[in-house]
Amino acid sequence: MSTSSWDHLLIGATLATFAGNTPYGLITDGAIAIADGKIAWIGKSGALPADAINRAANIDYLHGALVTPGLIDCHTHLVFGGNRAHEFDLRLNGASYEEIARAGGGIVSTVKATRTASEDALLAQTLPRARALLADGVTTLEIKSGYGLELESERRMLRVARRIGETLGVTVRTTFLGLHALPPEYKERREEYVTLVCEQMLPALAAEGLVDAVDAFCENIGFTYEETRRVFERAKALGLPVKLHAEQLSDLDGAALVAEYKGLSADHLEYLSDAGIRAMAAAGTVAVLLPGAFYALRETKLPPITGLREHGVSMAIATDCNPGTSPLLSLRMAAGMACTLFRLTPEEALRGITVNAARALGLHDRGTLTIGQRADLVVWQVNTPAELCYWIGGDLVRTVYRAGQH
Amino acid sequence: MSTSSWDHLLIGATLATFAGNTPYGLITDGAIAIADGKIAWIGKSGALPADAINRAANIDYLHGALVTPGLIDCHTHLVFGGNRAHEFDLRLNGASYEEIARAGGGIVSTVKATRTASEDALLAQTLPRARALLADGVTTLEIKSGYGLELESERRMLRVARRIGETLGVTVRTTFLGLHALPPEYKERREEYVTLVCEQMLPALAAEGLVDAVDAFCENIGFTYEETRRVFERAKALGLPVKLHAEQLSDLDGAALVAEYKGLSADHLEYLSDAGIRAMAAAGTVAVLLPGAFYALRETKLPPITGLREHGVSMAIATDCNPGTSPLLSLRMAAGMACTLFRLTPEEALRGITVNAARALGLHDRGTLTIGQRADLVVWQVNTPAELCYWIGGDLVRTVYRAGQH
Ligand SMILES: [Zn+2]
Ligand SMILES: [Zn+2]
Repeated sequence: MSTSSWDHLLIGATLATFAGNTPYGLITDGAIAIADGKIAWIGKSGALPADAINRAANIDYLHGALVTPGLIDCHTHLVFGGNRAHEFDLRLNGASYEEIARAGGGIVSTVKATRTASEDALLAQTLPRARALLADGVTTLEIKSGYGLELESERRMLRVARRIGETLGVTVRTTFLGLHALPPEYKERREEYVTLVCEQMLPALAAEGLVDAVDAFCENIGFTYEETRRVFERAKALGLPVKLHAEQLSDLDGAALVAEYKGLSADHLEYLSDAGIRAMAAAGTVAVLLPGAFYALRETKLPPITGLREHGVSMAIATDCNPGTSPLLSLRMAAGMACTLFRLTPEEALRGITVNAARALGLHDRGTLTIGQRADLVVWQVNTPAELCYWIGGDLVRTVYRAGQH
Repeated sequence: MSTSSWDHLLIGATLATFAGNTPYGLITDGAIAIADGKIAWIGKSGALPADAINRAANIDYLHGALVTPGLIDCHTHLVFGGNRAHEFDLRLNGASYEEIARAGGGIVSTVKATRTASEDALLAQTLPRARALLADGVTTLEIKSGYGLELESERRMLRVARRIGETLGVTVRTTFLGLHALPPEYKERREEYVTLVCEQMLPALAAEGLVDAVDAFCENIGFTYEETRRVFERAKALGLPVKLHAEQLSDLDGAALVAEYKGLSADHLEYLSDAGIRAMAAAGTVAVLLPGAFYALRETKLPPITGLREHGVSMAIATDCNPGTSPLLSLRMAAGMACTLFRLTPEEALRGITVNAARALGLHDRGTLTIGQRADLVVWQVNTPAELCYWIGGDLVRTVYRAGQH
């Protein structure tokens, strides 16, 4: 196929491939060719085939600019009605949690605003947030339900998530998070709600093709270990992968539970135990770290990074974008926070928003720069990978390719 | 002058004027008219004169969008050669300060890169950083020298600062920071260096019109109280206002010293004493808080916010953008950090990047939305002021007017 044509050829790039075990999988003075939406060639510019220039429809000389895989945000609650800036303001003006609850604050206010928004209104409110993530280099993102907490509203959230993907031309993976919070109307009937989620909501939404994975909020202020197991059993019966909000505020053995189901990921993990780490390592479950919530909540207990490293658990980083605990619109900022707050190395942080984030979503066709992978890639205005974590804010993106298109 | 014409009329805006004592100086359903680069009218849309529509060359209906004064970044070290991302990477990979110093890291590396860069190269490296600040709503910024530490290089830095203003059409206030660090070649001759700064560098650069204010780094690892006094005396003799990096890592009474000279501001202030607060209050010296450095250095000692409030010291917030301790390219992010890390209210944080930042620069023609002020203003994609501090990252700017132009 030496005469096959390439749609794009980038030359003179600094390629952070995240393939192999060298730092960043770095290739300096690298070249990368795109054909049919995939990476067709990658290597040193000097090693290009002799006819490379003739093969390529477009050639871009990058003068050392950094190229990475498209960024992958593997944990977001991007679809929601309203926002909680007023609550943020009240809290900083000294209001107690009780006063905020009386003023209609907390997750209940987001549930109300989400339930009352039409699908189009919800899409219109979510699009600017999705565009913010995309402007920062994101080409694949996960979006959870969980502010509807009733069939119709959960469906609407997941439909909006799908429409975000269609509207913006990016991959959106949907996650059903019925066990996010107990809806107010079930305050005295929690078992009934869990049954509703497991027996009606999840099967119905799965049948409509709206559910790529199943999640729960396993926490003292959320759902118990046994309630989580119930929804995991249902997911398993439906052939859906699971993941879990686990060990954020306390240790409920959630990580071991999600590992038992060979789950994609356990997320947050500040209170993760050694046993939890070992279970995740054995199951290949990814640890998704969410420094945005850690920052916004001013937490002080760090996730057990050293233990995760020692046991070889893959670490991913995500925005956790949500209106209450992490109104974070930049995945690159999340990676920077993972360095500054969690002491990850820039390489770990960047693997966490590329290759390991792909694993956390069960995607094998992206996350590295290697032949045959989707040509989701970002050309940056900087020359070294560490700069992506070092600079706080600013627009460092030069060009984004999504499946070879830009 | 009822027939005078307005260049722009914005209607249906949420105006955060920061004038008066109501929260945010808020005017809902407000209107603002611009003529000759200044604010010609401001108030409720319903109170506009009957012929308002005919007076205006352009009318924009904002549907409730928030309008604030243009943001003012009153403390930056924006001009420098190179960056320190590699050092950031080394440190997170466990390198000691000694190892980093041996690898050529630390401020010395920035001094070297700045000294060896031509004026054009320095401008080219600085422009993207300035553009990042501007994209975030900044219309006025301060830029310090202090990485040259010899006459030629300090001059080049200040000339680049002036050219940033001319190139981008924004106001740049220059600050001479000769006493930033002891240059390596003066290691054993610190008094000689202070004399050079006071007797040669400062007078020469002031004579060239390159110096709007004089600053120093008063700290155990910087310059002493007495050395700082020497440069303040010289500034006073030249009729230049002073400001000071004070009480960041220890209490050297710097705030009281800068207050003694009726200085514009004392900056950082984590270790500020009660006596320092009282001196600043009496002198009208602004407290410039720099949460970016606090965040990046993972400091834990908070500036005495309660004391500053109680004594009525005006608080400003700035990026402190610099390659070592605060590679922060977003002033709105600095305001958000001031809320989350320092527990300022969103109103305090936003006054800190508008009206109080103007005071910290000695500018009286901007920082609020009131008649006669420069028409530096930002139309945002959000509807409430608190959202500017609440959202972390993202591009919330819709339109920026600089002296009435957009
Ligand atoms: Zn979450
Ligand atoms: Zn500074």
